[in-house]
Amino acid sequence: MSTMHDAFVEQLKDIYSAETQITKALPKMVEAAHSGELREALQHHLEETRGQIDRLDRIFEGLGTPATEKKCKGMEGLLKEGEEGIKNHESGPVGDAVIIANAQRVEHYEIAAYGTVRAWADELELDDAATLLEETLDEEAAADEKLTSIAEGGLLATGVNQEAGGSTSR
Amino acid sequence: MSTMHDAFVEQLKDIYSAETQITKALPKMVEAAHSGELREALQHHLEETRGQIDRLDRIFEGLGTPATEKKCKGMEGLLKEGEEGIKNHESGPVGDAVIIANAQRVEHYEIAAYGTVRAWADELELDDAATLLEETLDEEAAADEKLTSIAEGGLLATGVNQEAGGSTSR
Repeated sequence: MSTMHDAFVEQLKDIYSAETQITKALPKMVEAAHSGELREALQHHLEETRGQIDRLDRIFEGLGTPATEKKCKGMEGLLKEGEEGIKNHESGPVGDAVIIANAQRVEHYEIAAYGTVRAWADELELDDAATLLEETLDEEAAADEKLTSIAEGGLLATGVNQEAGGSTSR
Repeated sequence: MSTMHDAFVEQLKDIYSAETQITKALPKMVEAAHSGELREALQHHLEETRGQIDRLDRIFEGLGTPATEKKCKGMEGLLKEGEEGIKNHESGPVGDAVIIANAQRVEHYEIAAYGTVRAWADELELDDAATLLEETLDEEAAADEKLTSIAEGGLLATGVNQEAGGSTSR
């Protein structure tokens, strides 16, 4: 019978896999982004993600458990969708809006996942792990807000206006 | 070249597929849940999900677009993970914590997805769609909070205590 502690380690392995997959996918999103601001935000999040993996390594070390991955099928599906989004849209504000839509699904996966393990770490009285997981959770929430502010700060409006102005060239 | 409007319809089709998949997965989660409170919350969300699909039907109708699905691979992956979680854990507080962890990943997918299309509907001045999408977004956020309150309102503590008391029976 599995314990909360076993389930906690299993969740960490799932998240470890998710983060590793994200480090491979983000460079393609950076390359596909048309807006400089979006490119920068994604590049910044790639660096943050590497730091988040370091935190996971420290948590596994603290638990005396090898830092191994359990293939995260959820993230695999999200990133497949993201790749299709890039393929199916030309570079420009509409393509950027689609990249943001997919990136926010990824961020929300992480917000849910880190929210779970942070609460479990509290209950298991693993204070060091809880602190590290809280730091990452804050970064994920900030990354999600940054993407919203890029979308709503002009990018969506540009996409809609392009539509109005460019309808004859389709 | 695809327009914001095209991309909006594409997002709706993805969400339509996600919701349909959820209506098939939720009954299995209801059945697997050990806690009566969790079972009730999931059952309630199943009924809510059917209402959310009705709203999507009304949005498609308003747009004059057939309500078709575009297979949502993101949700497919999330639900696969959820099924494995049910298979790999016995019925009890730890299994329930895992069900909640997976259900919150699903909720957050929807929060991200509905947040996207609500913002796009605003920008496209599709006011009726924006209102309906906002209603669903509020329900998803409330469903997520309900799951957090079940986990943190005693279920996790029971899971941890069972671990302390049940370590000899593993």
